[in-house]
Amino acid sequence: MSSYSVEEITAEELARITPVAEGLAGQVRALVDATVRTEVDADAVAEAREHIAAATEILRRRQLDGAFGVRFSEAAGKRNWGNAVCGVRNPIAPPLEMSYDGEKLTGTAHMGAAYEGPAGLVHGGMIAAMLDQALGSAAESAGAPGMTGTLTIRYRQGTRLGPITVSAWLDRVEGVKSFAKGTVSTADGVTVEAEGVFILPRWARGEVREAMIRAVGEG
Amino acid sequence: MSSYSVEEITAEELARITPVAEGLAGQVRALVDATVRTEVDADAVAEAREHIAAATEILRRRQLDGAFGVRFSEAAGKRNWGNAVCGVRNPIAPPLEMSYDGEKLTGTAHMGAAYEGPAGLVHGGMIAAMLDQALGSAAESAGAPGMTGTLTIRYRQGTRLGPITVSAWLDRVEGVKSFAKGTVSTADGVTVEAEGVFILPRWARGEVREAMIRAVGEG
Repeated sequence: MSSYSVEEITAEELARITPVAEGLAGQVRALVDATVRTEVDADAVAEAREHIAAATEILRRRQLDGAFGVRFSEAAGKRNWGNAVCGVRNPIAPPLEMSYDGEKLTGTAHMGAAYEGPAGLVHGGMIAAMLDQALGSAAESAGAPGMTGTLTIRYRQGTRLGPITVSAWLDRVEGVKSFAKGTVSTADGVTVEAEGVFILPRWARGEVREAMIRAVGEG
Repeated sequence: MSSYSVEEITAEELARITPVAEGLAGQVRALVDATVRTEVDADAVAEAREHIAAATEILRRRQLDGAFGVRFSEAAGKRNWGNAVCGVRNPIAPPLEMSYDGEKLTGTAHMGAAYEGPAGLVHGGMIAAMLDQALGSAAESAGAPGMTGTLTIRYRQGTRLGPITVSAWLDRVEGVKSFAKGTVSTADGVTVEAEGVFILPRWARGEVREAMIRAVGEG
């Protein structure tokens, strides 16, 4: 079972393992794209599957019992490498790359063929996923972290597959509730708007909250 | 550029290519899971990457210019195999497997380590993605298809990684707007509730709508 944990990791260890994780996830992302778009015949697919099975067998020689979890440390801050939206070692994540300037969070991602919903457009649910993460991270970056309580998404126009920019900011805090807002934009302008309420879970108001604050800062 | 299209495909051709696509996507899904959970060292990762690169090269020998798109035919009905949530050839999709009993849509999926958000829990955004698809498909199955206009999600409790069930139904139709509702459940009970408004795009009210109706039925 994965969990929140405080880990011991040095800056050197982190510098060593980060490119390995990023490189592997990036290569699997390319395979995912190739899988969605391939038109090769069944014999070629069988040949490819042998390689995929071999790679899987190698990676499974030693593995976590469950998911990656969320780990906190001085060196790495918050390490959620398995995260489905922004995890650097998760091939499902585009990944959404986020930065925070003290007021606004900006995220960028390339949403390719694997993120399709309506023909040629990013799946509305995958847009929702990017916004959920960005709004939650904006609240966290502003010192008011929480799990999603409510998420409301308004789709103004279709979001074409390709590069997207996500903007998100903390609007206000009321007790354990953080209210965040955000948008998704492409070359077509703003395509989607969102509002979210993020709630700090009861179990995260003690020790884990202390570790989170130490790791990610008060904002 | 992917698009909506009417394809010529026979039942025999469909029966031949479906298991090939499902088998490949399933094997890449296993690799994605192994990538998120692996603890092997950098040398083993390098070895695995060689196999992944070889598989990618094989699949890329002949490929679609863009995404898969959405294809309609007599034999296959609607074929959205590249869909990020339910596409049978998309490794990012869990996939959500859906059936409709004439009133309610029921979807099931296994959300493993690659769908993590909070530690040990399904990413709120990935939950939103499953609901967006299920609500939209419920509206479509009831004869009132559309693209997502608004999606509102209420997270009642965390959704543990593992098997989930999604229920969705069309609540009402007002002109080109379809209102759908739904839930996500696990062994813990209902974890998430959602409402969505789906709008039939202007361009889909003519020829494509006719093809969609022929393929998926009036409901």
